[in-house]
Amino acid sequence: MNRIEETVSRISKLDRKAMAAALARQDQLTKPKGALGTLEDISVKISGITGEALPKPGKKVVIVMASDHGVTEEGVSLYPSEVTAQMVLNFLSGGAAINVLARHAGADIRVVDVGVKAPLQHDNLTSRKIREGTANMAKGAAMSREEAVASVEVGIEVALEEIAHGAEFLAVGDMGIGNTTAASAITAVVTGRDPAEVTGRGTGVDDRALRHKVEVIRRALEVNRPNPDDALDVLSKVGGLEIGGIAGVILAAAAERRPVLIDGFISSAGALIAAGLQPRSTDFMIASHLSVEKGHQAALDRLGLQPIIFANMRLGEGTGAALTFLLVDAALKLLSEMATFEEARISGPQGE
Amino acid sequence: MNRIEETVSRISKLDRKAMAAALARQDQLTKPKGALGTLEDISVKISGITGEALPKPGKKVVIVMASDHGVTEEGVSLYPSEVTAQMVLNFLSGGAAINVLARHAGADIRVVDVGVKAPLQHDNLTSRKIREGTANMAKGAAMSREEAVASVEVGIEVALEEIAHGAEFLAVGDMGIGNTTAASAITAVVTGRDPAEVTGRGTGVDDRALRHKVEVIRRALEVNRPNPDDALDVLSKVGGLEIGGIAGVILAAAAERRPVLIDGFISSAGALIAAGLQPRSTDFMIASHLSVEKGHQAALDRLGLQPIIFANMRLGEGTGAALTFLLVDAALKLLSEMATFEEARISGPQGE
Repeated sequence: MNRIEETVSRISKLDRKAMAAALARQDQLTKPKGALGTLEDISVKISGITGEALPKPGKKVVIVMASDHGVTEEGVSLYPSEVTAQMVLNFLSGGAAINVLARHAGADIRVVDVGVKAPLQHDNLTSRKIREGTANMAKGAAMSREEAVASVEVGIEVALEEIAHGAEFLAVGDMGIGNTTAASAITAVVTGRDPAEVTGRGTGVDDRALRHKVEVIRRALEVNRPNPDDALDVLSKVGGLEIGGIAGVILAAAAERRPVLIDGFISSAGALIAAGLQPRSTDFMIASHLSVEKGHQAALDRLGLQPIIFANMRLGEGTGAALTFLLVDAALKLLSEMATFEEARISGPQGE
Repeated sequence: MNRIEETVSRISKLDRKAMAAALARQDQLTKPKGALGTLEDISVKISGITGEALPKPGKKVVIVMASDHGVTEEGVSLYPSEVTAQMVLNFLSGGAAINVLARHAGADIRVVDVGVKAPLQHDNLTSRKIREGTANMAKGAAMSREEAVASVEVGIEVALEEIAHGAEFLAVGDMGIGNTTAASAITAVVTGRDPAEVTGRGTGVDDRALRHKVEVIRRALEVNRPNPDDALDVLSKVGGLEIGGIAGVILAAAAERRPVLIDGFISSAGALIAAGLQPRSTDFMIASHLSVEKGHQAALDRLGLQPIIFANMRLGEGTGAALTFLLVDAALKLLSEMATFEEARISGPQGE
């Protein structure tokens, strides 16, 4: 049994008993039943994930997976590939949006080079480069099946390390110029939608470049014919190394019964790969924001997840997930800290 | 010139120069232009409000206005009026959702009795009771015009006190059994919509009670014929004392150039009254969440505001606004703390 199979086999069901206890408490708190909406759902889900009736906020980490994409040679992005490595260095020196938001949310950041197309060395960088960027999916497979497996394994290993060091809440993020093209291709294959329905502007291409991007994805799907029922086939043919890494983090979090926050469109593509490998893994995912990027809604629908922040964001890096850590903490504090009707001596509904 | 006129006359325009400076900086930060969406909009708006090119997070307060509603005698709510006073005591002992969320966001809470139908005394309660609840709007005016003016003045005075004590960011919240009926009536009058389009289940009434609630609002509008062009007429005839208080807080915040976060449906009704008294006041409002309560979207549309959290909440108290303080802080930290492209030596778009 390889590392992925072993991890997938450990992902079991939510703890219904803990969820029932959390829900029973929610209904005793001083508010009308269900009035805290998704915040109640999140706390009950985390009870199911952790098996604790009263789960508390805990140590958080955002795992940012970085890699490059050969498909950029087709001119699908506004920015050159060099920006991936430059932004990784920006993460490591603390100047990127994800640094600001992780600090704000009290989360650590772990940056992983799974396949950046440049030599990168830094004390705080986890170097697990599988290859220097993928090949151009418009001309053939983005990577071999073995490389796809290796990318997922990197995610699993890094997540297990973080959990061993005490991480109780994980979030996934991405950096990779060209990766909205890969995410759109994956989403099209897995959801069965036409590429035009799930392809957006990425970093901000214009109408003409958007049409070209859709055309490139169509060509990639024709050339590669990925099998929608084989997540590793999809990942290897039209995916990205960072997307594989994200899938691995999610699977390991689920295996270790830790909630994992899904960021935007790229992270959701990773979540689709994870769900392809183990459908139960969606039980351990918490959606964060709805990206502007076309296709994100389709991916979340497929995963059965509801985002909570609608802020027209389209940055990736884990930014939406880091913001959502703050709302998850709020949800858990509400469950633990609110008074019950009995404690506060408050009348119930009339006639009850 | 009375207190309301004096306050309204001090509300001026956003500082376009500060906004241009903030926007120019946003476009130099290490992200594609506009990729942080609403978070960028919020920081630029706060620049316009405060006149600072780089506004920072600061002292926060949630002002919770509480009062009762005579219309409850029509059976429009699931809960009895006594719950208003009981919940005010819950706020004062720290056990309500708003307490948990304000603590989480680092905000103070100021609880104001503008018209609770019970004797209430507590060291931390601001007692500014105008009358013991409104009259039944289904049979006549909810209050006199003088009382409506007084309720707005209470909000102005409390907000000015908080600002004098250092509050830089304000949020409004409400408590008042029956107040979704008043908010729906106000929203129907101000937006010109049919009551059925803007009336929801409040604390959770069933289909039959919802039809009855709409019928009660129709009767209130027929009996009172509020003038949609006269906000104080609307407030006095179908409003609530806490809704007037909320309008006052908003006007004072705008006059003092402090951002004010609008909570859910009741707070938005207060915002409609404030906007009726001074349309420019909407420039100083920041929307928080979209409530489940039918009518909230219509009110926000009228105010020209976009909510950022979609969490199916319907609790009021300022809970959605308190959560949004965390996102506002995030927006301001991003503007101040992110590296620029030049600082991080990152390539710009290709061909530029």
